[in-house]
Amino acid sequence: MTQSDDLMQLDSLWRGIHVATMKDGKYSTIENAAIGVHGGRIAWIGPADQLPRYQTQQEHDMAGCWVTPGLIDCHTHLVFGGNRAGEFEQRLNGVSYQDIAAQGGGIAASVSATRAASEADLVASSKRRLQSLMRDGVTTVEIKSGYGLSLESELKMLRVATTLGNELPVTIKRTCLAAHAMPPEFDDKDRYIDYLCHEVLPKVATLGMADAVDAFCEHIAFSPEQVERYFQTAGQLGLPVKLHAEQLSALGGSAMAARYQALSADHLEFITEDDVKAMASAGTVAVLLPGAFYTLKETQRPPMSLLREHGVKIAIATDANPGTSPALSLRLMMNMACTLFGMTPEEALAGTTLNAANALGMAHTHGSLEMGKVADFICWDVESPGELSYWLGGDLVKQRIQQGIISL
Amino acid sequence: MTQSDDLMQLDSLWRGIHVATMKDGKYSTIENAAIGVHGGRIAWIGPADQLPRYQTQQEHDMAGCWVTPGLIDCHTHLVFGGNRAGEFEQRLNGVSYQDIAAQGGGIAASVSATRAASEADLVASSKRRLQSLMRDGVTTVEIKSGYGLSLESELKMLRVATTLGNELPVTIKRTCLAAHAMPPEFDDKDRYIDYLCHEVLPKVATLGMADAVDAFCEHIAFSPEQVERYFQTAGQLGLPVKLHAEQLSALGGSAMAARYQALSADHLEFITEDDVKAMASAGTVAVLLPGAFYTLKETQRPPMSLLREHGVKIAIATDANPGTSPALSLRLMMNMACTLFGMTPEEALAGTTLNAANALGMAHTHGSLEMGKVADFICWDVESPGELSYWLGGDLVKQRIQQGIISL
Ligand SMILES: [Zn+2]
Ligand SMILES: [Zn+2]
Repeated sequence: MTQSDDLMQLDSLWRGIHVATMKDGKYSTIENAAIGVHGGRIAWIGPADQLPRYQTQQEHDMAGCWVTPGLIDCHTHLVFGGNRAGEFEQRLNGVSYQDIAAQGGGIAASVSATRAASEADLVASSKRRLQSLMRDGVTTVEIKSGYGLSLESELKMLRVATTLGNELPVTIKRTCLAAHAMPPEFDDKDRYIDYLCHEVLPKVATLGMADAVDAFCEHIAFSPEQVERYFQTAGQLGLPVKLHAEQLSALGGSAMAARYQALSADHLEFITEDDVKAMASAGTVAVLLPGAFYTLKETQRPPMSLLREHGVKIAIATDANPGTSPALSLRLMMNMACTLFGMTPEEALAGTTLNAANALGMAHTHGSLEMGKVADFICWDVESPGELSYWLGGDLVKQRIQQGIISL
Repeated sequence: MTQSDDLMQLDSLWRGIHVATMKDGKYSTIENAAIGVHGGRIAWIGPADQLPRYQTQQEHDMAGCWVTPGLIDCHTHLVFGGNRAGEFEQRLNGVSYQDIAAQGGGIAASVSATRAASEADLVASSKRRLQSLMRDGVTTVEIKSGYGLSLESELKMLRVATTLGNELPVTIKRTCLAAHAMPPEFDDKDRYIDYLCHEVLPKVATLGMADAVDAFCEHIAFSPEQVERYFQTAGQLGLPVKLHAEQLSALGGSAMAARYQALSADHLEFITEDDVKAMASAGTVAVLLPGAFYTLKETQRPPMSLLREHGVKIAIATDANPGTSPALSLRLMMNMACTLFGMTPEEALAGTTLNAANALGMAHTHGSLEMGKVADFICWDVESPGELSYWLGGDLVKQRIQQGIISL
């Protein structure tokens, strides 16, 4: 046995750091820590004075900065054609929602712009938005389809999401949200759900283009019964489900989703205690979206105390979309979760790390800094992890590490 | 006469741009425009097809991006020791304001941390915050003292602000806010005001360390009568004044400030129509601070319709400070001005350009893109100027031009 067999072999070592590991969804802090990376995974993490003897290609002394898991944005509609700044401006100039809808605005505008856009144009416009998220500390982003609403254009959106993940140092999870709204070609919701169950979902599954399936359950979209048929098809195809639920009214979609072992139910301003209990037993994550709450000037907050009391895991996401949440900063959503919903900074950080990983079914490899997990982490220019939720805006990322590599 | 005498001589020319000039506080758009810069000033601006014959050192084709004046953040407390993320976190964990005050928190914590910090440390910590503002499109920043509350420490803060302007490509305006709060050495407000009038303001003026003088007029700070004495001294010293007024209650500070030809009165949630009229006649700018409104979860909005009706110029600022508005993005404040106060994106942009320049007494040289004005402008990666207020977060700056030079 040569001497080097006694040494821990590392690609890179970070020291001079304090770490909020987010193990078990708590800060689980290690001060004066070190992180060793090998093969894109965390080979060692602990107090620097317990570091075993090692050999490393690179060593980084971060002079006392704080490290957290890379942030995970578990609910976005980041790929879309056009934007709706014009509508935003019209509304503030007094034009009514009805008039905007009558002129083809709202979600219909995004559907027609997304259908019209080339795949290359969608990649280019989405890439700028994705880079904003990344520069703010995000290492994993879920991207939903849902502005295509036809087999071909839904697949186009999912291909764009795939391309983004190939071209940038970020992990992309793709969700098929074909049941987002009614496309102009259909006038019957059940027929559209039939189309999704018979043509869209099977093709998406066969091509391996989605990691999960999502729907919008609301009076203005689809009923729990309609969503249920769509979820049954997803289940037969082996795809996990998640749901936009109880955003504007209480339809019980979240409890129904829990019956289908949904990874998450999202929005939840109007959720009832029975729904919460159902989610708790199923382990369905509550994804809260304060950017949409803020932009829509909602007043009904998600029931934090019920969610806490029943032990539902709570995640936070941008809901990045052109209409109701044009949000390109996940840290800002953490601030809004604290300021608007009364979450603590520790809950907000759990909501964008371990609980967000749970909402994407990837908590076994992501979301906390533990030996064996993927080495996605951020060195922040802050003196405490609470600062991540405290500042409104600002450039706090000192170094971003994606699968063990310093990137962006 | 040689041929070159016929040519407009430029240092740099920008083309392939659309410009929201913000002349008269409106978009005053020029599509397919060009901007010529000479000696740090705008030598020419207009439709590119009317460009006279020119000679230039540099030429930049921006491929259709939008240009606006550099943003002006006309109300910040950017220089401070420490931060108050710990208090933010305590409050969200249920600790009361009273308990935080009892343990030396609140503004007292910032005063003691700022007094304790070395000038170099204050420069370093403030510089990071200032760079965040700059990266977001800001070219001029007002910085207030007010965490020193003694001659020596107020001067220290103002020297830090001066140093920041010397070390970074940004224009800094310094405001002496010695009447911000009561320092621990004093127990009588009138005596403290005497001290400011007899020792602090004269020295600050003699040393040329401030461009304006500011105070906090509120039950928890100083009365209109106390502020009036302080303003009289400022006037005798030739320093213009501005005021934190009507944030938490209606004391008539803004009308009093207008009588002293204040450049601005700031916050104004509780302003009355009489105050508004007084400001309108004096030309005092209303500076709205939606970041503080948001962070404090206030419910009383500034009366937009009264301000509009009486023709008061409205500016928007970050109020960047460690307690009530830890805001490092002026664009986010534009979004909040729209979403929370119902301003239009055009008003919000006027509020961070021409009207903000007015609030700093520099509208003759800054705040709009017109021939002869300083060449501070931003090329934005957007398709309409409304996008600047629409997105929450994101990196939209393509190029930042400070006094004709591309910087940061
Ligand atoms: Zn959504
Ligand atoms: Zn202030």
